[in-house]
Amino acid sequence: MRDAKLAVETGVDGLDVVIGTSSFLREHSHGKDMAYIEKTAIEVIEYIKSKGLEVRCKSCSPSHSDPRLHPEIPEISPMQQCPDEIGCGALTSSAVSSEDSFRSDLVDLLSLYKAVDKVGVHRVGIADTVGCATPRQVYDLVRTLRGVVSCDIETHFHNDTGCAVANAYCALEAGATHIDTSVLGIGERNGITPLGGLMARMVVTAPEYVKSKYKLHKLKEIEDMVAEAVQINVPFNNPITGFCAFTHKAGIHAKAILNNPSTYEILDPADFGLTRYVHFASRLTGWNAVKTRVKQLGLSMTDDQVKEWYVTRASWALGTRKY
Amino acid sequence: MRDAKLAVETGVDGLDVVIGTSSFLREHSHGKDMAYIEKTAIEVIEYIKSKGLEVRCKSCSPSHSDPRLHPEIPEISPMQQCPDEIGCGALTSSAVSSEDSFRSDLVDLLSLYKAVDKVGVHRVGIADTVGCATPRQVYDLVRTLRGVVSCDIETHFHNDTGCAVANAYCALEAGATHIDTSVLGIGERNGITPLGGLMARMVVTAPEYVKSKYKLHKLKEIEDMVAEAVQINVPFNNPITGFCAFTHKAGIHAKAILNNPSTYEILDPADFGLTRYVHFASRLTGWNAVKTRVKQLGLSMTDDQVKEWYVTRASWALGTRKY
Repeated sequence: MRDAKLAVETGVDGLDVVIGTSSFLREHSHGKDMAYIEKTAIEVIEYIKSKGLEVRCKSCSPSHSDPRLHPEIPEISPMQQCPDEIGCGALTSSAVSSEDSFRSDLVDLLSLYKAVDKVGVHRVGIADTVGCATPRQVYDLVRTLRGVVSCDIETHFHNDTGCAVANAYCALEAGATHIDTSVLGIGERNGITPLGGLMARMVVTAPEYVKSKYKLHKLKEIEDMVAEAVQINVPFNNPITGFCAFTHKAGIHAKAILNNPSTYEILDPADFGLTRYVHFASRLTGWNAVKTRVKQLGLSMTDDQVKEWYVTRASWALGTRKY
Repeated sequence: MRDAKLAVETGVDGLDVVIGTSSFLREHSHGKDMAYIEKTAIEVIEYIKSKGLEVRCKSCSPSHSDPRLHPEIPEISPMQQCPDEIGCGALTSSAVSSEDSFRSDLVDLLSLYKAVDKVGVHRVGIADTVGCATPRQVYDLVRTLRGVVSCDIETHFHNDTGCAVANAYCALEAGATHIDTSVLGIGERNGITPLGGLMARMVVTAPEYVKSKYKLHKLKEIEDMVAEAVQINVPFNNPITGFCAFTHKAGIHAKAILNNPSTYEILDPADFGLTRYVHFASRLTGWNAVKTRVKQLGLSMTDDQVKEWYVTRASWALGTRKY
């Protein structure tokens, strides 16, 4: 309450309310029990409501308050938006969230959220603070919570076991209304749900909706900008913008892609302002890729000539065949 | 069959049997129908069995046949092992697999696998060749297949939507016996299930089993070796070995981590031969981290002195407070 009062006095438009609810955090971080947490949460919410202010929950990742990581991308940021350089202006809902939700007692968690839902928060939050949640656990917890509260449900997933995109997607399937993301997933430890990865997952499931709602072609630009600002490389294996995300090399892949891209691509690079590339000088590529390249160059060769070239020249040039 | 005969003649120990079963691949890649696929699969399997050879399925990723990507890591590679530089020696099971399983007709797929299971294959394979599968789809498909065949089930997931680790994990939950991985997930497009990410996911769920079965402390070495060989950087956000995977910066995280690491760590860096690092000179870090650093240095300061230092010197040094 002291923090809430101090925060209100600064003249902010909204507050984040967050508390660790797992036994780990209750014991080793703040030392409070569930009764105290519930009582305090309700007091704080009622106080903030009485001041006519709105509250929005952020869970635990410090990246959320780092303006370098929140450039102005209201067009493509699916969930969290920090439209100014200070923090979060223009907040539109009141909410409360738990930290470490997936190591919290289910009944404790549901009791707390049922209580604050009754008080009238607009949003409750589930946070996989330590990155331990599995996709099916996420689905089950959010689905259960969906039946207990009538307000929005925000979720927050860390990526320690590489499941942050999948967990976010399962949360959406189960009825979550908001997903925390950051550009390239930058956040505490190895980060949270990356914006680009979630876009890739969402656009495959609901292409028309996602393409009409977000400016996907800006993704590469924003990722490059953030990567440069914080001095990191965009990972080679990044969904969509990784340097070989739309590169095809294997013979059977290349042949089919040249016939019809949807054979081996569920994402259309053009949606992101990118292009596909089919290797034709790799020892993994078959002669079909060479045939296409021959056509592109306006040359005239029979299939047998192309195959002969592929078997002799290409493999010689690539060091896989010796003379 | 022609390919199978040619392959057997080369004197190999085992064969991979793979075919695309989705309508996309049947139409645009090989042009065969399901009746032909089933008939041919059975013929090929019976031929190979008659030669006393074993068959092992690989799905579609060319990385599997690239020896640079398969250094000798039998200790930690959970599933696929290519112990020699040529390809796969010492194969131990016979199997057949489909490509693009998640865009294939369910009844077609189950019929094919039921038929080859009857013929006596040791393993059937499910491949998310285009990376479109979601975790709950994977669980449902593998669970259904588990009820149809009695043999092992191998799975293969591409990472186009960032779900390859989660999908592999859901496959294991549903009864899959084998997961295809590669070091750093290197494979066609943006790759497949990464070995390290899957280890992170598995060790959280079954720590004792995973720690006794795999030499986790070799993970960083093998990833660094492969990254250097193929001239890429280990991604900044890689599970376990990303440069900040065990770095703590946020104030509430740092305080709790210093009290008890399991508050914010589900992975113990020591299991991987790594160490944790708590930032104490970041503007996101609270005074507790500074207090611990003071103790480490053998200095004597009261809490008030530490707080005073933190508020003045640290924030000044970090450019967040001006005089």
